[in-house]
Amino acid sequence: MADDKALTPRAEDFSAWYNEVVLRSELADYSPVRGSMVIRPYGYALWENIQRTLDGMFKATGHENAYFPLLIPQSFLTREAEHVEGFAKEMAVVTHTRLKAGDGGLVPDPESKLEEPLIIRPTSETIIYAMFARWVQSYRDLPLLINQWANVVRWEMRTRLFLRTAEFLWQEGHTAHATEAEAEEEARRMLGVYRDFMDNWMAMPPVLGYKSESEKFPGAVRTYACEALMQDNRALQAGTSHNLGQNFSRQFDLKFQDEAGGESYAWNTSWGVSTRLVGGLVMTHGDDTGLVLPPRLAPVQVVIVPIYRKDEERSRVLEKADALAAALRGIGIRVRVDARDGMTPGAKYYEWERRGVPLRMEIGPKDLEKGQVVLVRRVAFGDEPRKEFVGESAAIDSMGDRLEDFQRALLARALERREANSHRGVGDYATMRGILEGAGGFVYAGWCGGEACEQKVKEDTKATIRVLPLPEFRSPDAPARCAVCGEAAAAEAVWARAY
Amino acid sequence: MADDKALTPRAEDFSAWYNEVVLRSELADYSPVRGSMVIRPYGYALWENIQRTLDGMFKATGHENAYFPLLIPQSFLTREAEHVEGFAKEMAVVTHTRLKAGDGGLVPDPESKLEEPLIIRPTSETIIYAMFARWVQSYRDLPLLINQWANVVRWEMRTRLFLRTAEFLWQEGHTAHATEAEAEEEARRMLGVYRDFMDNWMAMPPVLGYKSESEKFPGAVRTYACEALMQDNRALQAGTSHNLGQNFSRQFDLKFQDEAGGESYAWNTSWGVSTRLVGGLVMTHGDDTGLVLPPRLAPVQVVIVPIYRKDEERSRVLEKADALAAALRGIGIRVRVDARDGMTPGAKYYEWERRGVPLRMEIGPKDLEKGQVVLVRRVAFGDEPRKEFVGESAAIDSMGDRLEDFQRALLARALERREANSHRGVGDYATMRGILEGAGGFVYAGWCGGEACEQKVKEDTKATIRVLPLPEFRSPDAPARCAVCGEAAAAEAVWARAY
Repeated sequence: MADDKALTPRAEDFSAWYNEVVLRSELADYSPVRGSMVIRPYGYALWENIQRTLDGMFKATGHENAYFPLLIPQSFLTREAEHVEGFAKEMAVVTHTRLKAGDGGLVPDPESKLEEPLIIRPTSETIIYAMFARWVQSYRDLPLLINQWANVVRWEMRTRLFLRTAEFLWQEGHTAHATEAEAEEEARRMLGVYRDFMDNWMAMPPVLGYKSESEKFPGAVRTYACEALMQDNRALQAGTSHNLGQNFSRQFDLKFQDEAGGESYAWNTSWGVSTRLVGGLVMTHGDDTGLVLPPRLAPVQVVIVPIYRKDEERSRVLEKADALAAALRGIGIRVRVDARDGMTPGAKYYEWERRGVPLRMEIGPKDLEKGQVVLVRRVAFGDEPRKEFVGESAAIDSMGDRLEDFQRALLARALERREANSHRGVGDYATMRGILEGAGGFVYAGWCGGEACEQKVKEDTKATIRVLPLPEFRSPDAPARCAVCGEAAAAEAVWARAY
Repeated sequence: MADDKALTPRAEDFSAWYNEVVLRSELADYSPVRGSMVIRPYGYALWENIQRTLDGMFKATGHENAYFPLLIPQSFLTREAEHVEGFAKEMAVVTHTRLKAGDGGLVPDPESKLEEPLIIRPTSETIIYAMFARWVQSYRDLPLLINQWANVVRWEMRTRLFLRTAEFLWQEGHTAHATEAEAEEEARRMLGVYRDFMDNWMAMPPVLGYKSESEKFPGAVRTYACEALMQDNRALQAGTSHNLGQNFSRQFDLKFQDEAGGESYAWNTSWGVSTRLVGGLVMTHGDDTGLVLPPRLAPVQVVIVPIYRKDEERSRVLEKADALAAALRGIGIRVRVDARDGMTPGAKYYEWERRGVPLRMEIGPKDLEKGQVVLVRRVAFGDEPRKEFVGESAAIDSMGDRLEDFQRALLARALERREANSHRGVGDYATMRGILEGAGGFVYAGWCGGEACEQKVKEDTKATIRVLPLPEFRSPDAPARCAVCGEAAAAEAVWARAY
C-alpha cells in the first residue's frame, strides 16, 4: 500500500493519468484475459450506487427487471439486416460445448461442435423481442416495459479500463408499445431519466440530442444520446436511447391485436448505460491528486482519520471516532473510520484523497479536549477554505448540507468547464478544423445533412457528429450554412473527438 | 390471461406440476436457446429479494462485492487437476471472435480463431485466485473477503427450469486467509448464513453437513452443504460452502509474507447459492392451486382486489383500495391493487393465488359501508379460518403480524414435513432400499465410509449421500453399523434421491 508516487499530471499525458487513477485508486485492474478487466471492490461499490439509483428511477417510471439468455443463436443476430451489418461482427463465438483430453492438455471435443454457433450477446434486442412475441397477444399486454442488468461482450481491438472493454456490465431497457407516438415518448422519457441521473447524481452534465444516420444504433429509427465533455476535451457517449420503430417487431413477429380487432406490429425502444459511466466520473472530476467522487455516488462520503501517538490517546480518540461515525451513519451518511495501525495519518490522507472521498474528518487528542474536529474538503471551490475547525455536533449537523454543497459545486464546475469548451457559432471550416485538431471541445456548427461533409470532417480531424442537439441545447442563433461545404444548413450539429 | 385450466395435481405428476407452476405463475419461460431459460419479471423480483437479503448478510459479515471476467483461458481451468477432472468438461467454449459472410449467411471467420480457447466460467475459482495473487503481498492484506454476483454456464444435458439450466445466476464468495483455522471458520460461518436465510426467509429448513469424498466440490478439501427436502421427497442441494485448503493458492501462486517474515500459501474458501433457490421455494411450499410464497421474499405480500358493479361504486371502491394500499406501503408492506377492468374478481383471485401472494384483501361497496375488509390467506394453517372480516384499521395494524405469522407457519409446516419424511435409525439395507425406491425422503443410516457401499446404493436406488450431518442434525443414537455392508459405521449419513 506504500504507493506514494505522484500521478502523471493530466496536462502531461491525460491517458496515462487516467489509467493510473483507475489502477491506483483500486477501481479496477487488468485481468489475464485480453480485453477483460476486473472491477475491484471500490469500483464495484461505486457501480452498485449507480445501479441502485438508476434501478429506482426505472421502477419509478413503471419498468420491471427480467433476465434473458447470455447466448444467442447466430441466426437471430443476422435476422435484422442493418443490425448485424452495424455490429461489425466482432463477437465472441461459442462453437463447442465440451473439452476432451488431447495433445498436451484439453482441446475442444470435435464431437461437441454445435450445429449453429452461439454468440455471447453484444446486446439483446433479438432474443428479447423474440420472447416479447410470445408474451404479447393483445393491446392489453402493452406497453411492456422491461429492463435487464447484464454483462455483454463485444470483441474490441483496443481496450481501455471502463471505457472500452471486451466484456462490460450494463443495463438495457426494452419496451414494446401499441403506437409509434408512445414509443417515441418512451425513448425521450428514458433520455430524460439519464440526463437527470448524470446531472444530479454524477454531476456530469450531458448535451442531449440525436445521432446522424451514420452514427445511429444499427436497427434503430432514431438514436438519442447523452454526450458529456471530458477534461481532455473529448466527448464521451454516456447513454443512448433508441426508437426502434417496427424494425425488430417485423423480424421477430411481435404482433398484437389492437382495440379495433386488427393486427399490428408493436413499436419498440431500447436504452442503455454501462460501466463506462465510471470512466466518465473519473475523467469529469478527477485531478492530479486522483479521483474526486460526487457525494451522492461515493462509496465512502466521509473518512474519519484518528490521530494519536500514545496508546492511551489511541483508545480515547478511536472511541470518539467511532461515536462520530455512528452519529453520521444514523443520518444516512456513508462513513469509514480508518483505524489502521502502522500507517501515518499523512499516508492515510494521501490514500483517501487519491480515492476521491469528498470529506475527511481528522480528530486528535487536542480536538477531543476542545470538542472539535478538523474537516478537510477533497476540493475547495471558490474562496472557501479547504480545511476548517468545527465543533463536534456542528460537524454532524452540517454534514448532510456540506455533502450536498460539494455535489452542487462539482456540477457547477463541470458545467462551467463544458461551456467554456463549447465553441458556438463556428461558421467556417478552417476555424472548426483548428479547434477540433487543437484544443478540442464541442464545436457547434451548421451541417447540410450530407454524409460527405460528415465523412470529410472525420477523415480530416477524427471528430464526429456527437449529436444534433435538442432545442434547449441549440445555439441562440441557428447557423444558416454548413460549416464544411457552405450549403444551406439542415441542422446544427455538435462535433467533437470522442472516446 | 384467461388461463383457468387446473394444474396437474402434485400427486399425479410432480414434475409436470412443477413446470406448470413455474410457467403459469410467470416466474420463467423457456427460451429459444437450448438449456437457457428466461426469468420473467415476477420471478426476477423474487430473485431480487433473495439477492438483496443475502447481499446484506454478506456485507454484515465483512464481505465486499467485485466483478471478474466471464471468459477464462482454458489453461486456467486445467491447472488444478482435480478441479478440471471433476467438472466433466461440459463447458461452453469460445473459439472465434468474429463472424464473416459465408455460404448462406455468416460463419465464424477462420482468421479470428483464438490461439487458446476461452471458456465461459462454470465457476470462478481459477480467475479469482489468479487475481488475489496479485493483490495479496502480506498478512496485512488478509483476510480478503470477496463476493461476486454473476452468471455462469455449465453445459447440462437435461435441464429443468431454475433447477438445472445451462446458464444460471448465482453468487460466489471467494476468500483468502492467513491460517487454516480461519478458512475453516469462514466456510462454517457462511454455511450458517445460508441456513439462517433458508430457515428464516425461505422457510425451507435445510439439513447441514459435509459431503463424502465422491460428492465434494472438485478441488475442495471439504464441502459443506445445505440439503432441503422437497414435497416429492427428493433432496435439493440448496447451497454449498467449501474449504479449499491451499489447493488453488498453490496452483495460482497466492502467497503472502506472514508475521514472522516467512512466505506462506493462503487458505481459501468459496461458497455459493443460485437461482435454483427459486425452484426450491416452488417445491417446498407450492400446492395444487399454484405457488405459495413466504411473505419475507414475496414480490407482492398483499394484493387488494376491489369489487364493484356500477361506475359510481368503482370510483369509491378504488379510492379506498388506493388509500389502504398507501397505508400498507407506509408500514413497509409490498402491496398491489389489481384494478384491471374486464376481469372478474374471481379471475383475479385465481391468478394471484396461482402466483402465491400470501394475503388477499377484498373490498366492495358493502365493506365500505361497514368500514371493513375481507382478508383471505393463501393457505390456512391449523384451524384458523382462511377468510376473515376485519375492520379497516385493524387490518392495517395487524398486517405485519399476519405476514410474520404466515411466514412462521410455513416454516413450521416445512419442518414438520421434512421430519415426517426423515427415516432415522435405519439399520438394514432392505429397509433402506425400500424407502429410497418407495416413498423417498431422508434416510439416516450408518455408513462404513467406503466408496463401494456408496456406489452400490447409487446403482441400486439412484440415491446418494446428501451429507454426513453436523452434530445437531445427527440422530440421538449414533448408528453402530453400515446399513449396506454391516461393517462398523464411520459416520451417520443422510441418503436421498436428489435434484
